[in-house]
Amino acid sequence: MKAAIIGGTGYGSIELVRLINKHPHLEIGSVVSNSQSGVKFSDVYPHLSNIVEQPLEKFDANRLSEENDIVFLATPSGISSKLVPQLIEAGIKCIDLSGDFRLKSAEEYEAWYKHPSPEEQYLKQAVYGLSEIYKDEIKDSTFISNPGCYPTATTLGLLPIIKSKLADEKSIIIDAKSGVSGAGRGLSLTSHYSEINENTKAYKLGKHQHIPEIEQVLSEGCGNPITITFTTHLVPMTRGIMCSIYVNLKENISTKKVIDLYKQFYQESHFIRVRPEGILPSTKEVLGSNFCDIGLHVDERTNRLTVISVIDNLVKGAAGQAIQNVNLMNGWDEQTGLTDIPMYP
Amino acid sequence: MKAAIIGGTGYGSIELVRLINKHPHLEIGSVVSNSQSGVKFSDVYPHLSNIVEQPLEKFDANRLSEENDIVFLATPSGISSKLVPQLIEAGIKCIDLSGDFRLKSAEEYEAWYKHPSPEEQYLKQAVYGLSEIYKDEIKDSTFISNPGCYPTATTLGLLPIIKSKLADEKSIIIDAKSGVSGAGRGLSLTSHYSEINENTKAYKLGKHQHIPEIEQVLSEGCGNPITITFTTHLVPMTRGIMCSIYVNLKENISTKKVIDLYKQFYQESHFIRVRPEGILPSTKEVLGSNFCDIGLHVDERTNRLTVISVIDNLVKGAAGQAIQNVNLMNGWDEQTGLTDIPMYP
Amino acid sequence: MKAAIIGGTGYGSIELVRLINKHPHLEIGSVVSNSQSGVKFSDVYPHLSNIVEQPLEKFDANRLSEENDIVFLATPSGISSKLVPQLIEAGIKCIDLSGDFRLKSAEEYEAWYKHPSPEEQYLKQAVYGLSEIYKDEIKDSTFISNPGCYPTATTLGLLPIIKSKLADEKSIIIDAKSGVSGAGRGLSLTSHYSEINENTKAYKLGKHQHIPEIEQVLSEGCGNPITITFTTHLVPMTRGIMCSIYVNLKENISTKKVIDLYKQFYQESHFIRVRPEGILPSTKEVLGSNFCDIGLHVDERTNRLTVISVIDNLVKGAAGQAIQNVNLMNGWDEQTGLTDIPMYP
Amino acid sequence: MKAAIIGGTGYGSIELVRLINKHPHLEIGSVVSNSQSGVKFSDVYPHLSNIVEQPLEKFDANRLSEENDIVFLATPSGISSKLVPQLIEAGIKCIDLSGDFRLKSAEEYEAWYKHPSPEEQYLKQAVYGLSEIYKDEIKDSTFISNPGCYPTATTLGLLPIIKSKLADEKSIIIDAKSGVSGAGRGLSLTSHYSEINENTKAYKLGKHQHIPEIEQVLSEGCGNPITITFTTHLVPMTRGIMCSIYVNLKENISTKKVIDLYKQFYQESHFIRVRPEGILPSTKEVLGSNFCDIGLHVDERTNRLTVISVIDNLVKGAAGQAIQNVNLMNGWDEQTGLTDIPMYP
Repeated sequence: MKAAIIGGTGYGSIELVRLINKHPHLEIGSVVSNSQSGVKFSDVYPHLSNIVEQPLEKFDANRLSEENDIVFLATPSGISSKLVPQLIEAGIKCIDLSGDFRLKSAEEYEAWYKHPSPEEQYLKQAVYGLSEIYKDEIKDSTFISNPGCYPTATTLGLLPIIKSKLADEKSIIIDAKSGVSGAGRGLSLTSHYSEINENTKAYKLGKHQHIPEIEQVLSEGCGNPITITFTTHLVPMTRGIMCSIYVNLKENISTKKVIDLYKQFYQESHFIRVRPEGILPSTKEVLGSNFCDIGLHVDERTNRLTVISVIDNLVKGAAGQAIQNVNLMNGWDEQTGLTDIPMYP
Repeated sequence: MKAAIIGGTGYGSIELVRLINKHPHLEIGSVVSNSQSGVKFSDVYPHLSNIVEQPLEKFDANRLSEENDIVFLATPSGISSKLVPQLIEAGIKCIDLSGDFRLKSAEEYEAWYKHPSPEEQYLKQAVYGLSEIYKDEIKDSTFISNPGCYPTATTLGLLPIIKSKLADEKSIIIDAKSGVSGAGRGLSLTSHYSEINENTKAYKLGKHQHIPEIEQVLSEGCGNPITITFTTHLVPMTRGIMCSIYVNLKENISTKKVIDLYKQFYQESHFIRVRPEGILPSTKEVLGSNFCDIGLHVDERTNRLTVISVIDNLVKGAAGQAIQNVNLMNGWDEQTGLTDIPMYP
Repeated sequence: MKAAIIGGTGYGSIELVRLINKHPHLEIGSVVSNSQSGVKFSDVYPHLSNIVEQPLEKFDANRLSEENDIVFLATPSGISSKLVPQLIEAGIKCIDLSGDFRLKSAEEYEAWYKHPSPEEQYLKQAVYGLSEIYKDEIKDSTFISNPGCYPTATTLGLLPIIKSKLADEKSIIIDAKSGVSGAGRGLSLTSHYSEINENTKAYKLGKHQHIPEIEQVLSEGCGNPITITFTTHLVPMTRGIMCSIYVNLKENISTKKVIDLYKQFYQESHFIRVRPEGILPSTKEVLGSNFCDIGLHVDERTNRLTVISVIDNLVKGAAGQAIQNVNLMNGWDEQTGLTDIPMYP
Repeated sequence: MKAAIIGGTGYGSIELVRLINKHPHLEIGSVVSNSQSGVKFSDVYPHLSNIVEQPLEKFDANRLSEENDIVFLATPSGISSKLVPQLIEAGIKCIDLSGDFRLKSAEEYEAWYKHPSPEEQYLKQAVYGLSEIYKDEIKDSTFISNPGCYPTATTLGLLPIIKSKLADEKSIIIDAKSGVSGAGRGLSLTSHYSEINENTKAYKLGKHQHIPEIEQVLSEGCGNPITITFTTHLVPMTRGIMCSIYVNLKENISTKKVIDLYKQFYQESHFIRVRPEGILPSTKEVLGSNFCDIGLHVDERTNRLTVISVIDNLVKGAAGQAIQNVNLMNGWDEQTGLTDIPMYP
């Protein structure tokens, strides 16, 4: 099955290339980059030398549709909203890794993204690709809106306790730490080595566009509207997200019981690994893999639950979950092409 | 004035050496390291070559007292409790940078530190050296217990809102991120380069010995017993602490008003810099300096205050605050020897 | 085919585990660690949770031989020399990743390694596993001594020009830079995060045990005894080696011609990628992969060739080349299980 | 004495600000940045909050000259060549930190810098500010061309052996490793965090504009024209340069003798610290300080000398040496304002 990639020179794209390369049923088809069309892919990224030598192409919905079986969009927000309709018309399955189709509400999109929203019919058509949670919808879909990196780590870490009704839903605070690759390959002072190396930096307090996405998933999960406090930090590493999540519990319940609850919730989810009591995951323990590892601790002094949820932002937080969704859409084993052990150290 | 240092080969000690060297009224006296006595200091730390060439000495309370005017203890917990009484008997002023004399309650100490507590008379004698808050007590003291790194960043970030009575005192959550130097020079897998580089790691959830220290200061600050949730993380950098602090507000109040409240609270505190609205400090902005920089944000959707408080863990979190306290004890300007601009980048 | 690993808790071992896991013809058999036998592997390395859960075993040559088809030794030097003879007697194929069997001369071994040499009969039996160069010997072998990380990057970077007879053989200087994982998981001040982060450090000048290994390969390559200058540096990263190699040329020859010579030399070597003129490889361009990337530049002002050769020290410099050798020994395609694209960024 | 700084928003400038702030005889005067004039300096660099709050100014040679006693130019190459003549006409002393006036030959300048050369009269007037070597000329000068970072580390590491006539002058190879701050604050893919973190990268082989500067100093030092091989590498750290220098010796001479020779050469140079036999400096051992630390090793097998020379690129490699030169020009002690101990760890 041929997989096209649009947004060819960003980090999301090359992570897709890396994962498609090891997938037994997928091969790399067209790679689209309007800004660098005609250039050999390995000239932009020498680590692809002798592996992916093909030239970057211009966007052409019909040709893409004819020559490929599926298309991944790894474009900045505001671009996919224009390209996806053309691709859908051309009849090709789409996985959009941008934020354009994640929010069900057009007003919410415009309030947080500050772009015009995509047309409502496409918003409705998009299935939110949080693989473990929306497995059935994904299986039947031809157009997936792939979740954001922070929302993936956060909602996977929160849904078991939220759905259990043990959580005080007004008390949710998420303190997220991300590696710098999450900001992409675009140049900015924030991603300038000398500015962020040996530095930890909080950013976008109360303004991050992933807030409504998280709230939408959690609200749907518990049936009530949920409002969260969500704070993002850059830490000096390339890959990895850790979400430290704080929730007040409505009843006294031990760490052990919470762990059991999570293990049961995820008993059929290969990619979610719940740590035993007293052990917390670190971001490096999932590096390069599609795992989301979760550690849990109930502080008896305050009856507050702390959830530590870690992912590789470019894998489970982007390209890996996209592949997982393609596996589901095609009726393949969810793990196909995603069986790698994390790279450690 | 001659300043002795005990615990000569740890990071706290060499930071004291760096700061004493630039202090106009202090000079380095004896440097004590029982484990490496007789060795030239610059053989242990070549960056001191041609600057501090003296040999490390064995501990001898009387000789230390005769040959020096003040002594800094930068020893692991459990050691100062034995040395300080001898030094006080010998009649020399002490600044203890370990945790041994920070808690007023012997039971609390033993519960959290798992060592026998120092004798109560010395616990009582010790003045807690959070310079901005206990200035008057410090001025009159001859024995200072210097605050921990996390408690310094946390309590300086919380006291204005706590004392204002605007905070819901049960809602306090502190998500702390620290550079690896906080764990000292002792070898451990946690500080092994390949394990912590490119990694973010949560540790000691609900068990950190700084919890009772923070609660003691906050409780005293507001007059009620306060229980906090406190989570510590290692991030891959050498120096720096960021505490991201979450507090529910009892009234609606704007970010601007909170900033005004903090600015007023710290109007005579040179080392506390409150950022304007929309600007948050990063750890590198205080690197190598005695500043504690604070950013503030009220999320109107949840009426929750987020405080971002950053320090250099080895300066304001240890050696710098110790020097600041010596300045206060001697009636010198608080800034003496501490006027350096942070090293950026 | 079942592959046992001895030295189970070092970085070499877990990299073997990572690579064996993705090899279509190999599966992980016994994992031996005398110091931690009985412990579950994933308790030592949580990134292996739910993947490699088996307990670590004690060394037992006969049982290992019965239950496995091949054994990798990833033990410190001085250990393999004792275990390999037992394993060979027990009749199992061995790949030794330590330095114990790399030098043909017992005296050289003892002079550089400061241990007693292995018995000569085993030294003779060992085939040096520099895959691209000794392919035929490897195919017929049952006991491989896998090359060191520095020697792999160095000799692959030098052999084409050495064999061409264009190099002044007395002029060879190798300036090597390595990530810290090369020093292993054993605790030491040199690998302590706060000491090596934000630091570049030269070490072991003129004393590195890889010097005689490099000289042995180069001398055999050109037919004359070669003596090199070899300097090693630690740079603050986890993985990767760059060798910057300087050689005086005996004739005037352009960069382009040298590149052609290298491309021809390696035309059948998939894992060696020679960069075009003006482009130099960086260590990250081979991260996690078995590639050795080479850049070349002739400085016309001095008629001196600079070779930039990079590998991932744990893959092509250790576990990856070991797998490549197993592929050769079994008549499988050299690339089997090693087709991954480097992880970038 | 008031010191103006031109090029106010680069890393060279803020390092000048940091050092001037601690200098007893200097204070910060005008800070010029044409691109950001009118903006408060601390808005560009929040680490300067409450310390340097003044607005950035537009360039005006006459006003600068009236309001200040000395001016530092920390501008990109090609700019100083235009500004310095105006400043000299206006009668103010200049220290230029750019490369514009370092080469004596206008042709060499244009060949390597690819800009038009400054006018010859100013090239002639400029004194090359390698403080330890040209002390007397500097004392009498009113216009200093401050050396480059690589040339400082290289020539200080080479001049003792070059001047001794023990070196084979055709054999000099310099393998230089630099932190990323050397590339400045200008955005580029090379300085993008995710590209250079966990990466080592060679660049500009045979083309670096510091080559003719090094050759000029060495040639003058020995009386013969010297041609070098000079290779630059980026390593993932913010500050620090290590030059590993290789020289063939014309006679057999021990490491100890070479160390004695260097110690004697630098016996009156406080900022040059020669390590004892067997000890090599690392870049962190000079972090934030004006030291140049040198380690030496003669490899008896090849009779080749290896020199390891380290500096902080922003201090001894730029702003610190500029202050040292101002000290010399004013007849102050060379160490004035530069007595800080390196920041370690």
